[in-house]
Amino acid sequence: MHIDKLAVVGVGLIGGSVALALKRAGVVGTIVGIGRTAANLDAATRLKIIDRAVRLDEDWTRELPDASAVLVAAPVAQYPALFAAIATAIGPDTVVSDAGSTKQDVIVAARAAFGGRFRSFVPAHPVAGAAESGAGAAIATLYDGRTVITTLVAETDPVALERVSALWRACGARVATLGAPEHDRIFAAVSHLPHLLAFAYVDALAARPEAAQMFEHAGTGFRDFSRIAGASPEMWRDIALANRVALQRELEEYRGALDRLASVLDARDAGALEQIFARSQAARRSWEAAFGAGNASEE
Amino acid sequence: MHIDKLAVVGVGLIGGSVALALKRAGVVGTIVGIGRTAANLDAATRLKIIDRAVRLDEDWTRELPDASAVLVAAPVAQYPALFAAIATAIGPDTVVSDAGSTKQDVIVAARAAFGGRFRSFVPAHPVAGAAESGAGAAIATLYDGRTVITTLVAETDPVALERVSALWRACGARVATLGAPEHDRIFAAVSHLPHLLAFAYVDALAARPEAAQMFEHAGTGFRDFSRIAGASPEMWRDIALANRVALQRELEEYRGALDRLASVLDARDAGALEQIFARSQAARRSWEAAFGAGNASEE
Repeated sequence: MHIDKLAVVGVGLIGGSVALALKRAGVVGTIVGIGRTAANLDAATRLKIIDRAVRLDEDWTRELPDASAVLVAAPVAQYPALFAAIATAIGPDTVVSDAGSTKQDVIVAARAAFGGRFRSFVPAHPVAGAAESGAGAAIATLYDGRTVITTLVAETDPVALERVSALWRACGARVATLGAPEHDRIFAAVSHLPHLLAFAYVDALAARPEAAQMFEHAGTGFRDFSRIAGASPEMWRDIALANRVALQRELEEYRGALDRLASVLDARDAGALEQIFARSQAARRSWEAAFGAGNASEE
Repeated sequence: MHIDKLAVVGVGLIGGSVALALKRAGVVGTIVGIGRTAANLDAATRLKIIDRAVRLDEDWTRELPDASAVLVAAPVAQYPALFAAIATAIGPDTVVSDAGSTKQDVIVAARAAFGGRFRSFVPAHPVAGAAESGAGAAIATLYDGRTVITTLVAETDPVALERVSALWRACGARVATLGAPEHDRIFAAVSHLPHLLAFAYVDALAARPEAAQMFEHAGTGFRDFSRIAGASPEMWRDIALANRVALQRELEEYRGALDRLASVLDARDAGALEQIFARSQAARRSWEAAFGAGNASEE
């Protein structure tokens, strides 16, 4: 596999790390970085993440006709406009992929924008990340041992799928496949809901009159539980809206679980409390044993 | 400050670490360990955490009349029975302290058990811990730089308070004081509620038909958010019941926050979602900057 020319739209942590990983693997010719701000693109150029930079307010689509692959790694809310522009400019052999955390909405946007070329689009979700963002945070090893999930639709061209899968494997990742609704349901449960719960918790705590005193006494339980409440508001606003339906279902289910917990506490039912905690402990320990080390990546 | 004889009732992580820290400081003569199981007491003796062991089904109170200090570091539900036994046996100069995570219930139990000697009881909460439990997990450095909160009542003897405070300072901790209702309210918010939320989350997830597939795709967001859902069911059952009133209030407040979040999501209100997330991010980042390193202890 060799990618003569790669266009990365959005040269942040995710897109920049793909560029560095492909350079490390020696499988890429030219990398063009396309983005919103000159500052981030300048940093990406200086750090040799990309070979050339074009801003989104310039004539960036001129870089696409001869691109082997286009990777969209921008915030998900920008996808419809980006896809529409990309659809008009790619060449007959260009494949397109993305790196969004939600997939059904991306597929709807891609199908609308790409028309007959929708078959060249391979929706993907690299389950990897880090606390920092931007080109400065990009590292060549981000995808080593991580999972990239592709969510195929019937139209997807097998050749496009194989080229995009090879790209991610060259980054060090293993590629798995899920249906898009299944993908969105799973990540609503194991990633998007916990983020919402942690955001709601810290926001409510910070609004209280005794907030300062409470934060002063918060220890490691608080620290770990609330770490994801420090994540990007823009990114998570987009994810919450993009995966709204699955997330509403998760939130409803969780509120039911809290109703049951509140009843048990009201009834001072020691046995029922201990059962809930014991089932949780057993499940959490099994998870730690099976996946605790291997899945040590952001999502 | 020198403690000629210390009796530790419950030689687990907390009590065992006090013993090791005081030995490290060279301020203790004999340490007698009192506990439920021969296995744990044997381990504590073998590890030189204690000098002598007595089981709770033996005549353990014979060790108390000449003890300088008695530290109760057993599960909180056992306190009433332990206090009643201790009250009948301590000498005129013995001070008593505890290490429970809740304080109002401990004060009620101590007042009922100690009668006229209640003035010699100093309620304390060392805000420290670790993932493992038992004597084998005890370390001399557990309290270095940690906070120990004493919750005084009007009756407390200033001499007893100073001796217990000196004991904790000799362990490497700094001693702070809070009223008991304030203490229980603060820890309900920053520790007990997050534990309940994480337990409820993992228990509900584990009960689903797709649980195995969901756990397989869980990443670091899940890992950190749910770490406390692997904590001891027995210990957290006792804490939840002991601090039930404050915890019910916290749970009710949090359910209100989730109601508001669900409404905002139902209304697809991007601005309101981003505001919640942004306020949370700002508060979480301020906390990390102010306390993230210093409070790196379990509670």
